[in-house]
Parts: sequence; C-alpha cells; structure tokens
Amino acid sequence: MATVNENYLKLPGSYLFAEIGRRVAAFKEAHPEADIIRLGIGDVTQPLPAVCIDAMHKAVDEMAKAETFRGYGPEQGYDFLIEAIRHNNYVGLGIEIAANEIFVSDGSKSDCGNIQEIFGVDNKVAITDPVYPVYLDTNVMAGRTGELKEDGHFEGITYLPCDAENSFSPDLPNERVDMIYLCCPNNPTGTTLSKEELTKWVKYAKENKSVILFDAAYAAYITEADVPRSIYEIEGAKEVAIEFRSFSKTAGFTGTRCGYTVIPKAVKGLTKEGKTVEFNKLWNRRHTTKFNGTAYIIQRGAAAIYTPEGQKQVKELVGYYMENARIIREGLKAAGIEAYGGVNAPYIWLKTPNNMPSWDFFDKLLTEVNIVGTPGAGFGPCGEGYFRLTAFGDRENTLRAIERIKNKLHF
Amino acid sequence: MATVNENYLKLPGSYLFAEIGRRVAAFKEAHPEADIIRLGIGDVTQPLPAVCIDAMHKAVDEMAKAETFRGYGPEQGYDFLIEAIRHNNYVGLGIEIAANEIFVSDGSKSDCGNIQEIFGVDNKVAITDPVYPVYLDTNVMAGRTGELKEDGHFEGITYLPCDAENSFSPDLPNERVDMIYLCCPNNPTGTTLSKEELTKWVKYAKENKSVILFDAAYAAYITEADVPRSIYEIEGAKEVAIEFRSFSKTAGFTGTRCGYTVIPKAVKGLTKEGKTVEFNKLWNRRHTTKFNGTAYIIQRGAAAIYTPEGQKQVKELVGYYMENARIIREGLKAAGIEAYGGVNAPYIWLKTPNNMPSWDFFDKLLTEVNIVGTPGAGFGPCGEGYFRLTAFGDRENTLRAIERIKNKLHF
Repeated sequence: MATVNENYLKLPGSYLFAEIGRRVAAFKEAHPEADIIRLGIGDVTQPLPAVCIDAMHKAVDEMAKAETFRGYGPEQGYDFLIEAIRHNNYVGLGIEIAANEIFVSDGSKSDCGNIQEIFGVDNKVAITDPVYPVYLDTNVMAGRTGELKEDGHFEGITYLPCDAENSFSPDLPNERVDMIYLCCPNNPTGTTLSKEELTKWVKYAKENKSVILFDAAYAAYITEADVPRSIYEIEGAKEVAIEFRSFSKTAGFTGTRCGYTVIPKAVKGLTKEGKTVEFNKLWNRRHTTKFNGTAYIIQRGAAAIYTPEGQKQVKELVGYYMENARIIREGLKAAGIEAYGGVNAPYIWLKTPNNMPSWDFFDKLLTEVNIVGTPGAGFGPCGEGYFRLTAFGDRENTLRAIERIKNKLHF
Repeated sequence: MATVNENYLKLPGSYLFAEIGRRVAAFKEAHPEADIIRLGIGDVTQPLPAVCIDAMHKAVDEMAKAETFRGYGPEQGYDFLIEAIRHNNYVGLGIEIAANEIFVSDGSKSDCGNIQEIFGVDNKVAITDPVYPVYLDTNVMAGRTGELKEDGHFEGITYLPCDAENSFSPDLPNERVDMIYLCCPNNPTGTTLSKEELTKWVKYAKENKSVILFDAAYAAYITEADVPRSIYEIEGAKEVAIEFRSFSKTAGFTGTRCGYTVIPKAVKGLTKEGKTVEFNKLWNRRHTTKFNGTAYIIQRGAAAIYTPEGQKQVKELVGYYMENARIIREGLKAAGIEAYGGVNAPYIWLKTPNNMPSWDFFDKLLTEVNIVGTPGAGFGPCGEGYFRLTAFGDRENTLRAIERIKNKLHF
C-alpha cells in the first residue's frame, strides 16, 4: 500500500486560528448581541493603493487582446518587477543584488515554507520562541525534528527564547546550528533586532557556516532610522543570508499574493563529499520545476508601488496602520498594561496582567470587552504570559477597542 | 556547514526548452531574415474569455474599497469557485465530490509537483515514458530515485513505455508500484485512455493499494463522447485516485495561474504501524501551511467560466485551438507523416520520417522550413523518434506552418 509522509503526523492537530475561531463562534452564539472587535489575525483591512488598482486594470485589459496577451512568464518573475525591487529595495540603499538573485513568488508564506526543501534533512534548525508557525511546521513535515515533547517543543530543534528579559533579542545558541530563522520586524512580538544584534548573528553564521533565513515581511513598518531594513545592510550577510520580502503587509496584498526571496550566489551549502553548491542554483531549480510564476496581472500591481506615486500611497497606508499601533501601545500603557513592539511593526505584544495564562486572558478579553486578540502561547511556549494585538483594524474599531480596554477591563 | 538536498544534484542540468531556445537563438543570429513559426512550447496565444476579463475588472474594483476589500481568503479557495467547480465538473456529471475534497491552487504545475510530499519517501513510483517532466523531477528531488542511468532513466523508477505499438496506452507494471502518474489527455502524445483502459488501472490500484495521480489538465479538449473527462467516472476511482485540473489550457490561464486538485477522503495511505491516514487530511495540512490561497481577483476570473456565457466562450476558445489541431493533423497526413493525438488534445505527436532522431528532426524543421517544435526525446527515452507540435499557435501561423511542411520539407 502507498505509505504516507509520517512526519506530518507529528504536528498537533488543532491550529491556533482555528481554536480562536471556535471560541469566538461559541461566544457569539451565546451572546448574539455582542459587538465583537477583531484585533487578532494579522490581516490588513484597508483597500489596495490606487496605483495598484490602476495597474491591474491595465494588465487585465492587456489579457483581453491577442497582441498584448501574456501566457507563461518567467517563473522567477518579470524583469519589470525584479528591476523595480532591485533598485528600490537594494541598489538604492547601496546593496548590490543581481537580478538573478531575486525570485518573485505568490507570497512569503510559500517561500518561507518551501525554502527548507533545498537543504539536507540532516541540518540542525534554530528558531526563536515565540515564532511564526510556518518555519517550524515545515521543518517538522520534512523530518528535521523528532516528536513533540510535553513542554510544547519538538525534539531536535534548537529553540531561542525571546522574552522581556532579553528584550526579545535571542542569545546565540550554545550548540552549532545550520539553519537559523530570524523574523525582523518580528511576528508576533513586534520588536526588531538592532544592527549590532544582527551583526552578531551574521558573525555566528560565518564562523559556523550556517545559513540565516531572514524574514523581513514587515520591513516597510520600520520607522526608526537605525533599524536595518534588509539583512544585507550587515557586512558579510550576502555570504550567509537568504531574505524573504512580501507585498502583503507593505501594500495590502494578503489576498492578492505577491512576495519575493533574495538568494545571493555567495550563499552556499555542502555536499557529503565536501563540495560546495550555491543555494541560488537549487532554488532556481525548485522554482522552475514546482512553480509557474506569479500571475502577470498581480506582478503589474506589485510593480506599481515602486512608482513615485506608489511609494507615496504605500507610505500613507503603512502610516495609517502605524497610527493604530500608536493608539494601541499608548492605550495599553494608560490602562496599566506593559506592552512591546508597535514602533517598527504593526504588532503589539503585551504582558498579560498578573501573569495570567494567555488563553485565560483571551477569554477574559473576549467575554468582558468583546475584543479578539491572539494568545501568546499559540506562538510557542515562551509566548505564554503574553498576548498579541494587531494594528491592522480600521481606525474607528481600534479606538473603540482601546477605550473598552481602558474603561471596562478589570484586572 | 549547512548541507544541501543532494537529490537535486541527480537532475541533469540542461532543460528541454532552454536547449530549444538556445538552438533557435543561434539559428536566428545566423539567419536574421528567417520567418520563424513556433509550434513548440505548450503555451496559449489567444486572449482570455471576455467573461474572465469582466469578472477580474470587477474584482479589482472590489479591492479598491474597504467595504468590499478581500484580505486572506481560505487557503483551499473561495466557496464561490469551489461550488462552481463541484457542480459543473463533477456533480453535474453524476460524480459526488464534496466541497472539502477540492483544493484551489495557483496551477496544476504546483500541485503535480507538491503532491508527492505527502507520500512516504519509500513509495515506488511509476511514470509513463514519454512524460511531462514535473512528475519525475519532483520525485528525484524528494529522494524517491537513485541516479540517472546511461539510458536516460532513473534508478528506482518504474517506467511505463508508450509508443505507437501499444497505442500510447501503457501496460500494467510487472512489479508492485505505489504511486502511478497518468496524464490524460496526454502531454506530450495528445492521446487518451479509454474507459476500459482506465478501469484496468483503477482495478490495479485497488488490488495493490496504490494511488493514481491523474493529471487531467487537458480535459476540456476531449471531443469524443466515450473518453472519460474525469477519472472519477470510473467506478472505485474515488478510493484510489487524486485528480489535477487546470484553467491554463481550458481558459487561457497559463499566465493568470489557477488550477485545482481533487482528493477524495476515501483515498488513504499507510503508516509503518499499519494505520491508515486520509491523504485529503495531509494535503489540507500542506496547503494551509505552505500556501496562502490563490489571489481573489484570479479566482473571480476562473469562476466566470462557469456561467452560461463563460461556458460558451471557453468552448469557442477550445474550438479555435482544436481547429488548429485538425489542420496540423490532416496536413501532416497529406505530407505523408504519421501522426497521433490532436483529436481530444491540443498536441500532435508525429513519428519522425525515416526514424530520424528527434533532435535531428528538430534541426531539419528549423533550418529547412523555419518551424520550431519539440523533440520527443526531451520527454523521455521512449519519445525518441517522435516529435510534438502544438495547436496553441494562431490560425494564420498554423496554416502557414502546415503549407511549408507540405510543400517545402523534403525527406
């Protein structure tokens, strides 16, 4: 009989947002009159920038005529988008990245999930705790872990705890690791790593010949000048780091799907015989074999954000959410709740009052003030005692939510 | 040092269409005046149906307003598309498929490539020869094969030869296999499997507890009544078959990207301990972990083809290409060239005159009559001595190409 990939069976069944949905639905059924405000899932709410709308209408029209119709495009993305990315996000900042080091995709989730495929199964993986679940789950599926332990950690993974004590900046691991997932600005904590901290990681990776998988999906939200927008701002990173970027949060593309991955040619891995191989070459093989390019219409929409008018519109959009972040951050402070993030990221990571377990705080927030957030424990054991609120709501709901927390939540 | 997935290194470097591109470019440089007609790559040339254009404009407009904006959708696809697929392609034909057995994606290439991930690495794979390269390459990458042998076959794969002798209908394997890739209507041969032939495979799969991976990307091109449009027309197939379908060739979506995969809950695999597991459940886990849904705009475009007007337009589009197929098929016959396919598929698979090696025939066709096709050897060793022409060109070029073959090609 055909056998299954048993690694999948190591993953716990229930998924964070499914459990949240279940609890919210149960509450709603019991209290149909409740006016629930959702600041839980990290999804945007504001319309696409007008430049994207215009560009996509134009592209749709091109698909209506034989002379301008587009069939299969290059799997790696169209030049018009790759060059726009290259010049605006790299060359313009003094970072030399070649066109064939950029791979356009249907979003960072796919790339962050699929990237591990080009690595050997024997690689030792390090992830922060708490963490975006995709890094861990895809390595479990690939067989790079043992079983799930009682403490919520998987055997064989090196966890890097991040909490208020270390300012959410992970310490270097005591053991040698090969693949290091870093997310900056961080989901869920909303915090960032300084140039100094990132330099420490690049140095570690060079010394240990590890590869840093750097998820910069939220780079557009950085407001402080000294926080690196790209890991390639760090000297030597081009030899050890792969970077993931996304239009999802930058330009509201969560339902429009476009992102890209940068793999410099200097990033290499080893064969058992000691030969080095470019990861760029392997990813190119994967991308051309298992993917057929992002829709032309969507790539045109994404490229539009790099026009001067597009840059202005994206800045306004990000500014809108970051004003929400400020409202939440300052509101929580006024309510006497300790909170982190929200300055260079659309996430606010709060310490639950009186060290309340994060699922208890979820229920309290839902039942007492009808607000949905995300329990920190859902992102890993070290997220216990924390809670995530997102700045992606609309302004009115964000203001109302904070008023409720300030005036009606008792703890 | 981080290690690489060494299975990737087993794949030969040069890719079929890259080599074709190289030869065409070299010829063009030597003969800049040559009027080259391309009937090589399987890419469409005609504009998208008007219903798709309208639906996508409307969807783009929805993304421009907060009230109708769409962020993350269900990874499995929107209900409006799933229900349209379900009713038009299955329930309407008397095939009961549940909504949660259908997974919308960004195209069949991704799904055909990724599906093997949910199977154990120890499964024995059978593929036809010649074959669409993705089935084989992705299993090589996953480690289900040994090395490439001198004869062009990979160790550990069960090849099912298809040629004129067996009417391009593969014989059952002598050894037990677990995963069987069947493509019908077939790329590259343009032939189909009869109900009787498919019944034979379903019976084999049930007896051997194998899974059939049935690629029906070209189903819309079937013109003959007795050729199954879906493998689920065969009794018992719902217990042993996964079906891949695509909008690429049905509605010109090669550059617009949408497809779907059907995994009935009854299709199961085994764990080492003898427990059975639904592949549907595993694929759902993969799809929600490594994919974030197809763009809303694109799904709206795809759903439009299921309106009565959409069905009419798709039929016209398919009819246009099938008239090309008829022109090519009959033209080849008139030229004294033996040819197959082109009745229920947009591909014509011709026997090279005088058993000429297929790359030699490629060069002959290019240099003597300036036509680009695809050498059969590029699809596997059993494709040697054959050559693929596609019906996806425009009418005028197709007519001119056939005139040249009839009047100017000497053999």
